[in-house]
Amino acid sequence: MLREAQVNARRENGGRLIRKILIANRGEIAVRIVRACQEANIESVAIYAEPDRHALHVKKAAEAYSVGQDPLAGYLNAHRIVNLAVSTGCDALHPGYGFLSENPQLAHICERRGIRFIGPPAEVIRRMGNKIEARRLMQSAGVPVVPGSEENLTGIDEAITLASKMGYPVMLKATSGGGGRGIRRCNHEAELRKNYDRVLSEATKAFGSADIFLEKCVDRPRHIEVQILADNHGNTIHLFERDCSIQRRHQKLIEIAPSPQLDDEQREKLGQWAIKAAEAAGYVNAGTVEFLMTEDGDFYFMEMNTRLQVEHTVTESITGVDIVGEQIRIADGQPLRFAQSEIQRRGYAMQFRINAEDPKNDFLPSFGRITRYFAPGGPGVRTDAAMYSGYTIPPYYDSMCAKITVWALEWDELINRARRALHDTGVYGVKTTIPYYLAVLDAEEFRAACFNTSFVEDHPELVNYKASRPTRELAAVIAATIANNAGY
Amino acid sequence: MLREAQVNARRENGGRLIRKILIANRGEIAVRIVRACQEANIESVAIYAEPDRHALHVKKAAEAYSVGQDPLAGYLNAHRIVNLAVSTGCDALHPGYGFLSENPQLAHICERRGIRFIGPPAEVIRRMGNKIEARRLMQSAGVPVVPGSEENLTGIDEAITLASKMGYPVMLKATSGGGGRGIRRCNHEAELRKNYDRVLSEATKAFGSADIFLEKCVDRPRHIEVQILADNHGNTIHLFERDCSIQRRHQKLIEIAPSPQLDDEQREKLGQWAIKAAEAAGYVNAGTVEFLMTEDGDFYFMEMNTRLQVEHTVTESITGVDIVGEQIRIADGQPLRFAQSEIQRRGYAMQFRINAEDPKNDFLPSFGRITRYFAPGGPGVRTDAAMYSGYTIPPYYDSMCAKITVWALEWDELINRARRALHDTGVYGVKTTIPYYLAVLDAEEFRAACFNTSFVEDHPELVNYKASRPTRELAAVIAATIANNAGY
Repeated sequence: MLREAQVNARRENGGRLIRKILIANRGEIAVRIVRACQEANIESVAIYAEPDRHALHVKKAAEAYSVGQDPLAGYLNAHRIVNLAVSTGCDALHPGYGFLSENPQLAHICERRGIRFIGPPAEVIRRMGNKIEARRLMQSAGVPVVPGSEENLTGIDEAITLASKMGYPVMLKATSGGGGRGIRRCNHEAELRKNYDRVLSEATKAFGSADIFLEKCVDRPRHIEVQILADNHGNTIHLFERDCSIQRRHQKLIEIAPSPQLDDEQREKLGQWAIKAAEAAGYVNAGTVEFLMTEDGDFYFMEMNTRLQVEHTVTESITGVDIVGEQIRIADGQPLRFAQSEIQRRGYAMQFRINAEDPKNDFLPSFGRITRYFAPGGPGVRTDAAMYSGYTIPPYYDSMCAKITVWALEWDELINRARRALHDTGVYGVKTTIPYYLAVLDAEEFRAACFNTSFVEDHPELVNYKASRPTRELAAVIAATIANNAGY
Repeated sequence: MLREAQVNARRENGGRLIRKILIANRGEIAVRIVRACQEANIESVAIYAEPDRHALHVKKAAEAYSVGQDPLAGYLNAHRIVNLAVSTGCDALHPGYGFLSENPQLAHICERRGIRFIGPPAEVIRRMGNKIEARRLMQSAGVPVVPGSEENLTGIDEAITLASKMGYPVMLKATSGGGGRGIRRCNHEAELRKNYDRVLSEATKAFGSADIFLEKCVDRPRHIEVQILADNHGNTIHLFERDCSIQRRHQKLIEIAPSPQLDDEQREKLGQWAIKAAEAAGYVNAGTVEFLMTEDGDFYFMEMNTRLQVEHTVTESITGVDIVGEQIRIADGQPLRFAQSEIQRRGYAMQFRINAEDPKNDFLPSFGRITRYFAPGGPGVRTDAAMYSGYTIPPYYDSMCAKITVWALEWDELINRARRALHDTGVYGVKTTIPYYLAVLDAEEFRAACFNTSFVEDHPELVNYKASRPTRELAAVIAATIANNAGY
């Protein structure tokens, strides 16, 4: 209560409520949030598990505190993190993505302890995290959902009955799942039997709930998602859509905004549905409504991500809106700065997740020391890196070490610029997905903006790039030597 | 003739005329042009004087050729450079800025040798390079010019007569000058007498011509310039203006687009004048029409720069137009891709010239080895660097080692983002202008968008920044140590 009184006093003094933010995350997204804090003149507090002691987010934040030796436990301990926020004088907490970002408990503890959670209310996170409840909510709001079970499955027999009614293939899904995990496709009854216990066990292990449900499988869909922003004053807007169809095993690799596969009519319809979905959910802050687009051009609600997305950068590039900055303003209680009509998009943007992986070896993580890193530059190129020359990527976390976001006025220009930007990027010491992306950029279907979530699977040949192209550095030296000998 | 026939054959084959470009420059602008070539799938040929052997443009270009031991002679030898373009199979040459870029001889030799000069025709360069002729041309086109002498001065007596007629202060200027060189202000007759021979000698030394003229001095002007693009098909458009008032001794430091000091009516008028100026000059390719803006809001034509400008990046950021790409397309004979009405601006952009200089020591160059360089990242930040970790800046050239261009939707947001981006940039081993720019960003007049070309001179206190702020790295380590000891 004292805390609340102090906060009100500040507000009356014309100040912002939020003066100091704890960033409950690591890697590039923690760096992204530090940057947003710096731009808002807000202090930032980083946390790190000991293996992250030399991570970039620790160096960039104004303050940084260890949360223990274990690589993960400290990032997943909501009570401890909120305690740290309180004891370091933070007013707010940003969860980033992954870790506890969609855990209603963290939001709930923040609410109880007087720390502003930079995200939706705990109850909204819970509601949308329950895929069955979210489906029901969407149906009542008039947003189409994939045909599927109305309730959690009670057992394999019910699953078989339902599946034969809706027709194979079907998807078994963890009700509390998300982010592409706890999902299995079943092409026929035998597969359904085999996968039932698997998904049950995955759901329990990954999401702490044995609830699973069934959905009709949409074959070869496009993954289209809409970014929304909602404030505490009843305003909800969308920032257009992203096309995240280029995935490998449900993990996004390349994201694009706007989708080159939509026309303006489809775009407008999706945007309106996303706003309806957010309003039905009582949504506040930044969120993403994910849709499947069928080969016939139908759309189905898939799930709502109640947090910042990895790929928010492409939306920032086409709209110019600083999404993390807006998240902070919304959590601060300020009304949205933009009406829907003021959100203008321009050009196309594409984000590449630079993963320390070896595409030629089934995308096996390639952790280790980055001996040298050269960031790309020039027009239309943005980097969000979590690495630097000499940085050692710890083996405990996901393999993404940077994101490169490229923008251009036209689609063809974007493809060419993206190729240039990837060539412009130097990561030495580990293998990365860069040469794979260069192969994708040369693929005819990709260039023609005609792809779905099966693209990566459909094009196994894309890993057959030349493992070591002669570097331009080398070429330059050779050329120079020739020129000198020729007496130029 | 054979060459022209080959070129026509290519065109008929549906190809572009330009397949390979020689870049007659060095440093960041050479890297910028390499990037444009890569995006257009055009081969690039770099040249380098031996002290530049390890320069970034040499590493980035597809081919690179030495033009000799002397740091400068090779970059200034038009015949040799065009020979190299011919012998390496180039179709075109990009002059960049500085060096030979505004030397009509280079354009002329290119024209004679069948190499497309990526810039205006030699005759236009010559015409606009003669400040007296340019003034006359502008007057006839209805563009206002500063009151001044109609012809070159014949001697000090004529200068004194003219000066007393138009009233002091006056400016003595080299007729063939440009880029802020060969200019002296004279507050009274004694100064005019003293400066006359100086400017005469400077003009002869720097521009190879003893022609000088007199202009009324516009006190405390704003420097506003308009970017234009013109094709070979009679189309000329403008890409709005840049405010380059933040200068030190006529050298620009920070450039902004659009000018926060103009309203839309002034903006529209300037744009139209710039188009008139370009059309009157028979202009083709990218160019810049520079204006002085008086304290009363009057505008006068100053000069036309017949080349790419250092600060073209801010215009690219607000319009999304790739100016170097358009230069190549225009030289290729293609019509402009945009009508004037299709050129939309969005937000504000600001470019910082990161010079290896010590602002505390009268901006003395601080050449040497860059021990570590960290490029900034995150939203709205573009880098155009000519350096890398381990690079040694040669002492023979200008001290600019990178440009950082920051974009944001709103002016206030831009200031905050610019501060963040500069803090985000790490250059170790040499002193740079970064801490000085941070001080500028905190200056009230600058933040209020109220400044003229005297700003730097008027604020000598801005160099009194703390020479060594504790690094955030250090702060993080200290904070972490405390936290660990406190048993978090």
